[in-house]
Amino acid sequence: MWRPVASGVAENGLAENGVEILCVGTELLLGDILNGNARWIAEQLAGLGLPHYRQSVVGDNTERLIDSVLESAGRCRILITTGGLGPTPDDLTTASIAAAFNTPLEEHPELWIEIQSKLSSAGRPVGPSNRSQAFLPRGAAVLPNPLGSAPGMIWSPRPDFTILTFPGVPSEMRAMWEETAAPWLREHGGSSEFFVSRQMRFCGIGESDLAEKIDDLLQGRNPTAAPYASLGDVKLRLTARASTASQAAALLDPLEEELRHRTGTRCYGVDGDTLASVVLSLLRRAGDTLAVAESCTGGGLGAALTAIPGSSAAFDGGVIAYTNAVKSSLLGVPTDVLEHHGAVSEPVVTAMAKAVRQRFSSDWGVAISGVAGPDGGTPEKPVGMVHLAVAGPDGCEAWIERFGDRRGRLAVQQLTVIRALDRLRLRLLARLSVECA
Amino acid sequence: MWRPVASGVAENGLAENGVEILCVGTELLLGDILNGNARWIAEQLAGLGLPHYRQSVVGDNTERLIDSVLESAGRCRILITTGGLGPTPDDLTTASIAAAFNTPLEEHPELWIEIQSKLSSAGRPVGPSNRSQAFLPRGAAVLPNPLGSAPGMIWSPRPDFTILTFPGVPSEMRAMWEETAAPWLREHGGSSEFFVSRQMRFCGIGESDLAEKIDDLLQGRNPTAAPYASLGDVKLRLTARASTASQAAALLDPLEEELRHRTGTRCYGVDGDTLASVVLSLLRRAGDTLAVAESCTGGGLGAALTAIPGSSAAFDGGVIAYTNAVKSSLLGVPTDVLEHHGAVSEPVVTAMAKAVRQRFSSDWGVAISGVAGPDGGTPEKPVGMVHLAVAGPDGCEAWIERFGDRRGRLAVQQLTVIRALDRLRLRLLARLSVECA
Repeated sequence: MWRPVASGVAENGLAENGVEILCVGTELLLGDILNGNARWIAEQLAGLGLPHYRQSVVGDNTERLIDSVLESAGRCRILITTGGLGPTPDDLTTASIAAAFNTPLEEHPELWIEIQSKLSSAGRPVGPSNRSQAFLPRGAAVLPNPLGSAPGMIWSPRPDFTILTFPGVPSEMRAMWEETAAPWLREHGGSSEFFVSRQMRFCGIGESDLAEKIDDLLQGRNPTAAPYASLGDVKLRLTARASTASQAAALLDPLEEELRHRTGTRCYGVDGDTLASVVLSLLRRAGDTLAVAESCTGGGLGAALTAIPGSSAAFDGGVIAYTNAVKSSLLGVPTDVLEHHGAVSEPVVTAMAKAVRQRFSSDWGVAISGVAGPDGGTPEKPVGMVHLAVAGPDGCEAWIERFGDRRGRLAVQQLTVIRALDRLRLRLLARLSVECA
Repeated sequence: MWRPVASGVAENGLAENGVEILCVGTELLLGDILNGNARWIAEQLAGLGLPHYRQSVVGDNTERLIDSVLESAGRCRILITTGGLGPTPDDLTTASIAAAFNTPLEEHPELWIEIQSKLSSAGRPVGPSNRSQAFLPRGAAVLPNPLGSAPGMIWSPRPDFTILTFPGVPSEMRAMWEETAAPWLREHGGSSEFFVSRQMRFCGIGESDLAEKIDDLLQGRNPTAAPYASLGDVKLRLTARASTASQAAALLDPLEEELRHRTGTRCYGVDGDTLASVVLSLLRRAGDTLAVAESCTGGGLGAALTAIPGSSAAFDGGVIAYTNAVKSSLLGVPTDVLEHHGAVSEPVVTAMAKAVRQRFSSDWGVAISGVAGPDGGTPEKPVGMVHLAVAGPDGCEAWIERFGDRRGRLAVQQLTVIRALDRLRLRLLARLSVECA
């Protein structure tokens, strides 16, 4: 139904202005939610090698939606929209886009049947408002939504301008992107070069520290290397372009090798790796299993590990020992140790790590006890102070982290999980290299 | 040095188009970082009652920066920019804004002295590139940066258009906002009305189902009500405007009351409430405590609860029973029940919920066992099928959720946590209303 857009540079020269993103939703303008969709789509466009120079946000307002769509039509070749596809009166995206190009809406009867069947099988009522979701501008093709009831569209209102619409619900948007939009963009996006990107992931080193170690490599033009930091984590994005994907990838390999050489075990993985996935694969390589004893993280370490498919091969489980009573009854930490040293102390995390390892018959036990805040701090044990211990076949090691009281409770919990996983990763690396020798 | 902008509606009618946000940074267009600045500023603008209809993102590119600034100048009265104020060659914001209005840059010698002293006292080298940060367009006033070396500016290149610039580093941007920009906007923002917003949060009801129940209330103009959905959650944003904040709030109260009347226990809270925070406060009201036994969520329920400050008052902890061995050894689930019914079954979650309640001496026990996927599904127990149980003073209730195999492992885990908390919430509400009667 959509007409394929011209590939390469169109006559009017707009093709080089690539892809724009328009996110629709008053909740974004009120600051109710973070624009995670824009970030995710931008990342995908970079991976596809499609130039992307603009993002916009407008609210649930027909006039401004029309203005913004027409502005993009004058600037870019492909417009990606998110939001405003639901069944409620403030879902205006499809109708506004049709109005922007003076095109009538037409019902797709097969969509209406599909919407009804999806809602019914999810046990949700079908109302007349849902029917509006079966209407698209004349000439538009359906961009199927495998998860939810709101379909998107692929429509070229002009020969050199195509709009792809997505709902605002991230899981639905991503599924639609991966199933339909990404293949379409690969074919019709008009990129004449292949861009290949790789992310290298680091732990235990700051962004500026890393940048200084590799300053000369950050100056390269092809491939490029750019660092950026997030909570407890530093990433390097390497990007190469060439006339084939394999040529581009081949440009990345020597750069990655040099970076690994300079940073040693600080680099924990690439691309989709997480600390948890790397730890789980090291555990599997060693044939080892793990159990956790969590106090101030309350299950966050276990949740990070079990977020990884197949984690059951190496993760046995754990105890969320949020009270002193549980620390002694389930983990056998002696009450006099708890009383004498306090729950946030080296003797207590050492006892917890050893006990959970034993109770679960696991090769490794990790224990955490700290002051996540905002309350509960004392001069000796301030908010942000966390004791950790890793007990394993080669003994038990305990240490303290101090995250301070400025970052907030969630950051203290997340950083604690990161540091626990990283220490376990280094222990496993040491163990495996000994065994390999 | 800036000329105060006209308050109220300017002659050309643009004043009503309020404030726009322009975020500058190629890292945003590459999807490297989330645009947390736009969200934070949007929230502040909503709190100040300033209309905000547009956000844009452009990269570190002079031409597109100039285009975008001039577009905003034709649409809005105040433009807030973030990013591009640093000392490096890709920091282009100040020079581009000056060029957009054909205005020369002038050095502020006092700024240059201040920048040098800030860098020196932080032990950082002072380079010639830092001097560029002391230049502002002729006529612009300094917007002081109390934390970093990059100052911003307040500049009215036209009588009805003012630009405020901020660096991209969130902590510096926020400090500058609070110290200088917020007071300035309160005085010069031109808002003659106060806006007050409230979010109502719902669980166990779909967005379209809710919208149909309250269709007439969604048509209101002041206050307005707008629904939006996220994973397992539907929100309604109510917004009222009036000449004082308390008058605006008073407009919201009867609407909230009517909405609560129509939706009953589906509404679980407002504004900053989460299901976990509401469950914890109900537990505290009842004087009850809770323990959890998690298999496929691996600690996610415990982590959701302990993300809330003060959770230790009602949350005892739990067992992450990721293997059958742990289900029997720590929770005493009989091995013949595990073998006969399988780990994902009603008898097993019932036994887990009762056991964890007993072992932790808690008033409530919640148990979860399911197939999170992507592997491990069978025809009888497909991916996305989860058994849950809530054991409490009034007995034990078990049920099944079926989330399907399309949403992915993380969504199954998150939805499971949400459903577990919501069921416990309803049980606690029933218990409290019985006790109140």
